[in-house]
Amino acid sequence: MPGEEGQGSFWKLTISYDGSDFSGSQRQANGRTIQEELEKVLTRLAGNPVVTQFAGRTDRGVHATGQVVGFGPFRSDLSPERLTLALNQQLPTGVSVIAASEVDRDFHPRYDAVWREYRYRIWLGQRSPLVQRYSWQVRGPFDPGRAQDAAVRFEGKHDLASFAGLGHGVPWSERQERGRGTVRNVMRCSARAVPAWWGAAPDTGSGVEIRIVADGFLPNMVRTIVATVAEIASGRRDPSWVETLLEARDRRAGPKTAPPQGLILWRIGYGDDLPADDPETFGSNG
Amino acid sequence: MPGEEGQGSFWKLTISYDGSDFSGSQRQANGRTIQEELEKVLTRLAGNPVVTQFAGRTDRGVHATGQVVGFGPFRSDLSPERLTLALNQQLPTGVSVIAASEVDRDFHPRYDAVWREYRYRIWLGQRSPLVQRYSWQVRGPFDPGRAQDAAVRFEGKHDLASFAGLGHGVPWSERQERGRGTVRNVMRCSARAVPAWWGAAPDTGSGVEIRIVADGFLPNMVRTIVATVAEIASGRRDPSWVETLLEARDRRAGPKTAPPQGLILWRIGYGDDLPADDPETFGSNG
Repeated sequence: MPGEEGQGSFWKLTISYDGSDFSGSQRQANGRTIQEELEKVLTRLAGNPVVTQFAGRTDRGVHATGQVVGFGPFRSDLSPERLTLALNQQLPTGVSVIAASEVDRDFHPRYDAVWREYRYRIWLGQRSPLVQRYSWQVRGPFDPGRAQDAAVRFEGKHDLASFAGLGHGVPWSERQERGRGTVRNVMRCSARAVPAWWGAAPDTGSGVEIRIVADGFLPNMVRTIVATVAEIASGRRDPSWVETLLEARDRRAGPKTAPPQGLILWRIGYGDDLPADDPETFGSNG
Repeated sequence: MPGEEGQGSFWKLTISYDGSDFSGSQRQANGRTIQEELEKVLTRLAGNPVVTQFAGRTDRGVHATGQVVGFGPFRSDLSPERLTLALNQQLPTGVSVIAASEVDRDFHPRYDAVWREYRYRIWLGQRSPLVQRYSWQVRGPFDPGRAQDAAVRFEGKHDLASFAGLGHGVPWSERQERGRGTVRNVMRCSARAVPAWWGAAPDTGSGVEIRIVADGFLPNMVRTIVATVAEIASGRRDPSWVETLLEARDRRAGPKTAPPQGLILWRIGYGDDLPADDPETFGSNG
């Protein structure tokens, strides 16, 4: 019977959302969240309460193209296509199911993830309304080559304590991290210039895209790495500042966190494949 | 003295806006409009009421990267850079001044325009939240080559009565058009496939961009041409349907108007140059 304990299937969803009008991904006491909206629709479809697990927590204003969600037991009478359709008919604007599949009972979207990819866009130029919803506008000098020089220094296994925290001067506690501490393996960290994208007013600027793939991310890690890269690209800091911060292991040594709207949780991998670097395949063009 | 009749300068602004949260460009009794927001700030800066002229009227939900606005007399003590800065500090999110310059007293943004360029994006694929704010999602078969075959048939001087109106079955009256009737010169009309753009979930779709340059546009003309092109690209109509509609000179013969959110008023020309077809230069990439 649909949704009855011990009956039904276990499901994995890949979802995309525009985080602008949500208070982050995770259910919380106040504010509209992605999890709450999704669980509301799933509960309606099941006829009993459905609780979901999200692979990655995204903060208020952060977007996703490839967030992964697990739940079950849940109706096994729906095909993945029918479930996708039913959810997309009922989910609010700004949240979509991209793919659905049945999974093993022991699948856990967070603990089974092998890598996650985040992308962050910086807009270099004049305030451009059709771009600013999904990018951080940076003024002043910004050298994309220098940004790349800074970015690659994050690759490898590092103690990223200086890049974990709720903001400048707010050290982060290890309590949520199941004993892994603050060491993470950064498989790829790159910055590249991108031309102006769709909706940018002609001749008003260009962009930089930062891509980070790692086996795990600490709270605010991407946005603190991006802020560090931006400080170096601006010329205010030397590229070696990356090593200085890595060695400091203290969030207070680092820069102010970059704003959320440039950040997208891009994809999550459950195999041992690394994402290829082909912008066509991964939709990063423009 | 600033703003006093007969004193001050005449100004031309190029502005960009995200039309999603506005009731169109033109001031009206109900609803928040671009003109109203801009005039509010200009009036505050001038110390007396400022009335603006817009080059093109954009409907509710339509965006702009290159709308042109004229007004004056207005303070001549501000440099174009200072005026741009002052306006951008006070304009709401979603509206920006891209450029400002002083112009002759007799400059009229609408009547002096030699050409206007609109661009429209169609998203072919799954519902993708970071793309849907600035595109029309079309499902089912869509052949970009066939879209281009249809689009080029609009080039040239035509009576576009079948493409003017407030919607399917609502004929349009000529009263606003200063005796020009419904003949317009379409200098360029093209459709091309574009890969997935920034924010599209990986492997979920691709796009088509339609560009139209003409010496003038009738109400809803772009959105009706886009809908016609889409009907042909889907295979439901033959490319020769363009000629059939042009000859019919009756809005009721045509398709339902395409939705507003895919449309951007891109640029307006006041010389006799045609926009070059270089996607890098004009920011159309991706």
